[in-house]
Amino acid sequence: MSEYTFSLEMDVRDYECDIQGIVNNAVYQNYLEHARHEYLKQVGIDFVELARKGINLVVVRAELDYKMPLISGDKFRVDLKMERESRIKFAFYQDIVRLSDEKTMVKGKIIGTALNTRGRPEIPDELNRLLE
Amino acid sequence: MSEYTFSLEMDVRDYECDIQGIVNNAVYQNYLEHARHEYLKQVGIDFVELARKGINLVVVRAELDYKMPLISGDKFRVDLKMERESRIKFAFYQDIVRLSDEKTMVKGKIIGTALNTRGRPEIPDELNRLLE
Amino acid sequence: MSEYTFSLEMDVRDYECDIQGIVNNAVYQNYLEHARHEYLKQVGIDFVELARKGINLVVVRAELDYKMPLISGDKFRVDLKMERESRIKFAFYQDIVRLSDEKTMVKGKIIGTALNTRGRPEIPDELNRLLE
Amino acid sequence: MSEYTFSLEMDVRDYECDIQGIVNNAVYQNYLEHARHEYLKQVGIDFVELARKGINLVVVRAELDYKMPLISGDKFRVDLKMERESRIKFAFYQDIVRLSDEKTMVKGKIIGTALNTRGRPEIPDELNRLLE
Repeated sequence: MSEYTFSLEMDVRDYECDIQGIVNNAVYQNYLEHARHEYLKQVGIDFVELARKGINLVVVRAELDYKMPLISGDKFRVDLKMERESRIKFAFYQDIVRLSDEKTMVKGKIIGTALNTRGRPEIPDELNRLLE
Repeated sequence: MSEYTFSLEMDVRDYECDIQGIVNNAVYQNYLEHARHEYLKQVGIDFVELARKGINLVVVRAELDYKMPLISGDKFRVDLKMERESRIKFAFYQDIVRLSDEKTMVKGKIIGTALNTRGRPEIPDELNRLLE
Repeated sequence: MSEYTFSLEMDVRDYECDIQGIVNNAVYQNYLEHARHEYLKQVGIDFVELARKGINLVVVRAELDYKMPLISGDKFRVDLKMERESRIKFAFYQDIVRLSDEKTMVKGKIIGTALNTRGRPEIPDELNRLLE
Repeated sequence: MSEYTFSLEMDVRDYECDIQGIVNNAVYQNYLEHARHEYLKQVGIDFVELARKGINLVVVRAELDYKMPLISGDKFRVDLKMERESRIKFAFYQDIVRLSDEKTMVKGKIIGTALNTRGRPEIPDELNRLLE
């Protein structure tokens, strides 16, 4: 597996922790989504702008391995790379890494596609170029 | 695959929808978690009570297939069954079904374990009995 | 103050509770919003449909008195009434009441307006009729 | 009103935006809470540590004035100061300011207290010292 091409540092916020005192499972998906959108923005693709044009980037499958939980006060990094999964699908490989000891807390593979204005899968040109 | 053993009906709430006008990906994990906890409560296992005793039910892996998005106003049902995955792991198979046309929107497989007070995987008796 | 005109029953979901084991402050605003949207829908006003037409119902001020916290397992009811606050503002008086003992947990006053397609405050006719 | 004593910069994350394309009302409470906890941590008071000792910092009243909405891509700052409200209450004055033009988007006054292990209001010493 090749190297990660983008990283984003974030902090755990207390409201993201649940009764067990750990970051709630669903919140990691928020972290991963935010990192993907920031990555795409950096390479010139704006999720919200695309949505306004009728092109919706959507997740079709998510695989998440929860290794260890983040807790209040933790700082972490989301490492990310994007690869073509098929003609109409792309995959994000994403790791959530705790900064204090570089331990991987969550490993994710998020598979997405783009739906055009008629709701059919069609990868827009700017994304295709990125996947070459 | 055997039949589902538990169902919970819920409504989409507008604050759960995002810019695309559809339920945000992470929110489905909330729906699935709520259905699991309600199921466990029904069979006499209280997630919060266990946590207070130092036994934490945790998710170790989540696989989610997003078929179609729920939107504002949708009513849906989470169907669920629980199976043993290994000696120290159990799996929830969960479908999110739109009530208006019985279409499956999301299929999930959520694998969990229980951590004892020393943080080691150990399925409590009441859960073992359920998995027999 | 006149009687409440709408009520909605809901359950606390475990993911809505935080490290203190109680429903997080921000979540009550979600409960209140959901109750307002359900009320409006019942009287024929759809928040999402209006947004699509370019008319945005927005909150301009929220006052929330937190009396007692809801916890995991609690069932509650949101009682609500709507009153005109000024020519271009309306107010929702909303109580969150725990079902087990009819105790009021949160009292809210949420003041809103409607922004027309030019972003100017203008109450749509269907809402004006409701406020008479 | 005296000067703000603490500021925290944050970004809007797309999942925090709703169907109207703006940050959802409840999310601002998350922003404000995160800023309060970071401030308290900076002056040596850890919300989560206190909770573990049985001392719960709780919000008793929130007043929020929503001036203008944050949208996807916005960067903002939460400015904050803390003042004594009464013998057993303290108040946070908090402004959410958009960085691009220094416009105030939300003004908040959040009144809190601390509950001791018996659930009675009692401001811990470290907080009292801060309020002098």
